[in-house]
Amino acid sequence: MADLNQLQEMVEEALRIRLADWGKAEPARLYQPVVYALEGGGKRLRPLMVMLGYRLFGERCEEALPAALAIEVFHNFTLLHDDIMDKAELRRNRPTVHLRFSENGAILSGDVMAFLAYRLLLETRHERLPEIAELFTQTAVEICEGQQLDMDFEERREVTTPEYLEMIRLKTAVLLACALKTGALLGGASAPQAHLLYEAGISLGLAFQLRDDLLDTFGEEQTFGKKIGGDIAANKKTILVTEALRTARADQKKDLENLMTGFSISPENKFREVRALFEILGVRETTLGLIDKYHARALELLEALDTPQERKQPLIDLSHKLILRKN
Amino acid sequence: MADLNQLQEMVEEALRIRLADWGKAEPARLYQPVVYALEGGGKRLRPLMVMLGYRLFGERCEEALPAALAIEVFHNFTLLHDDIMDKAELRRNRPTVHLRFSENGAILSGDVMAFLAYRLLLETRHERLPEIAELFTQTAVEICEGQQLDMDFEERREVTTPEYLEMIRLKTAVLLACALKTGALLGGASAPQAHLLYEAGISLGLAFQLRDDLLDTFGEEQTFGKKIGGDIAANKKTILVTEALRTARADQKKDLENLMTGFSISPENKFREVRALFEILGVRETTLGLIDKYHARALELLEALDTPQERKQPLIDLSHKLILRKN
Repeated sequence: MADLNQLQEMVEEALRIRLADWGKAEPARLYQPVVYALEGGGKRLRPLMVMLGYRLFGERCEEALPAALAIEVFHNFTLLHDDIMDKAELRRNRPTVHLRFSENGAILSGDVMAFLAYRLLLETRHERLPEIAELFTQTAVEICEGQQLDMDFEERREVTTPEYLEMIRLKTAVLLACALKTGALLGGASAPQAHLLYEAGISLGLAFQLRDDLLDTFGEEQTFGKKIGGDIAANKKTILVTEALRTARADQKKDLENLMTGFSISPENKFREVRALFEILGVRETTLGLIDKYHARALELLEALDTPQERKQPLIDLSHKLILRKN
Repeated sequence: MADLNQLQEMVEEALRIRLADWGKAEPARLYQPVVYALEGGGKRLRPLMVMLGYRLFGERCEEALPAALAIEVFHNFTLLHDDIMDKAELRRNRPTVHLRFSENGAILSGDVMAFLAYRLLLETRHERLPEIAELFTQTAVEICEGQQLDMDFEERREVTTPEYLEMIRLKTAVLLACALKTGALLGGASAPQAHLLYEAGISLGLAFQLRDDLLDTFGEEQTFGKKIGGDIAANKKTILVTEALRTARADQKKDLENLMTGFSISPENKFREVRALFEILGVRETTLGLIDKYHARALELLEALDTPQERKQPLIDLSHKLILRKN
C-alpha cells in the first residue's frame, strides 16, 4: 500500500503532466498564469487528503488522482482571486499573479482554473460522480461565502469567536473536508462512513487554521519560514483577537482597539504591544485549548471509521503533523 | 405544446423563484449583486435556447428548466467579470456590478454565480448528466479562451477575419450551441442529432454576433435602443475592421489606422469618417454576406434534424428574429 511520500509523489507527477499540457495551451496569456500559480508549490495538502481519503477504503489509488488534482487546481483558483481582493503582493515567496501578470489576467486565469478543476473532476467516470460533483459545487459556494464573511469582518469593529469559527469553517475547513470525503466516496465508502470523514475534515481544518493564526503571532520566524506579525499588522480579526475581545476588561478592550486603529505607532511597537496584551489575556492558552479540542474531535471521528487501523495511520500521522506543526 | 411566449414565461417564473431565495441568502453582500445582475433583464436568449432544444425531442419542458437557468446564471457570471476587465460602466442601462457595488464584490459574486450555475445544472438528475456537465465545462473553458483572445486583439494592430470569427465562436457562439445541445440531450436526442444542433447553434451564434457588430455601426439609434458607434469609439476590432483591413488598399489601410489611433479627432468625426471608409470598402455588404451564409447554414442544419417540422418552427422563428433584428 502506498505510503504518504508515495502518494505525494503520485500527485506531483500527475500535476507535472497537466502542467506540461497547459504550458503549451493557447491563448498563452490565459494559460501561462495557470502554470505559474500551480508551479509555485505549496503543501499539496488538499490533493493529498483526497488520496488519503481514498486509501482508507479503495485499492487503486490512481483512480483518485483526477479528483485530487481538481481540488488542488480549485484551491489555487481561490488564491488567485483572494490575492486580488486582499491586494496581496507575495504568495509562496513570489509575486502574486495579478502583479506578475495583470489584474485582468488574474481574474480570467482564475476563472478558467475553476473550470479546469471541474474538467478534471469530471474525468472521474464513477457511478457516484453526481454526488461528488454536488459536494464539490456546494463546497465552492461555501468558500465564496467564507471569503465574503472574511471581507465583511475587516470592516467590523467586533467579531465574536463563534462568528470567526464559522467564517474559517467556510473559508478553509470545508475544502479539506470535501477532499477527504471525495476520496472516501471514490474508494467505495458507505454514506455514513463518508460523512464521518467529512466531519473529521472540518475539525482538522479548524485546528489547522487556528494553528496558522497562532504561528503568525507566536511562531518562531526561523522555523515558521516566513515573517511573523502579518495578521497584527493588517488588523486581521483572527481567533486571537476574537478571544481577546471576549475576555478583556473594558479598559483592555479599549487598549486593543486603539492599537488596532492607531496609525502613529511603529509596526514593531504595535506588534509587541498587541502580543503582550494577548499574553496577559491568556489568548495563547485558550487558542491552544481550541486546537486541542478540534484535534481530539478529529481523532475521535477517525477512530470511529470502520476500516483497518493501518489504513488510518497515514491520515492520523498527517493530522498530527499539520496541527502540531511549527511552520 | 408550449410556444415561444409560454417557454419564455416558464423561464422567467423559474428565475423569479430562485431570485427570491438568493435575495434572502447570507452573506447579503455576496448574494445581493447576484440578484441585481439577474434582475437586470436581458433577452433570456440562452435559457430559451435550452427550452427550444428540449422541445425538439422532449415532452416535459419543466425537466429542462434547471439547466436553462444554469446557463443564464453562467452567462451573467461572464458579464460581471467581463465588465470589470473592460471597465464597462453600463449594462442594460444600469451601472455595472463593480460600480454599483465594488470590484471585489463583482469578482466574488461572479465566482459564486459560476458555482450556483453548476448547482442548478446538477439538479438535473438525468442519466446523461455527466455528458451535459462535460459539455457545460468545456464551453466555460472556451468562453474564457474567447475573452482572452478578445483582450489580446485589443493590443494588436491587425486581426484577420478568420481570427476574429474564431474569437467570437469561442466568446459567443459556443454558449448558444451548448444551450441548444443541452436541451436536446435532456429531451432525449441521439448523439448525432444533438451534434447537428450544436453546429446549428455555432452558426446562429456567429450570425448573431456579426449582426451585433453591424448594428453598432450601421444601426438606427431609435430602433437599436442604445447608442450606436461604441465599437468605433473603443477601436474594437469587429468584423467591420477585419474586413476593411482585408480589402483596403495600402493608403486606405493607413487612413483607417490613423483614425483608430488618433486622439486629435472628435468622436463624431471619427465615427463619420470610419463609417464612410467602411462604406467605400463595401464592408457592410461583405458582412451581410457572412450573416446570410451562417444563417443559411443554421437553417440547413435545423432542416436536417429528424423531428417534426412543427417542433422546429419556434426555433426557426427565433433564429430569423435574432439574425434579421434591427435591435
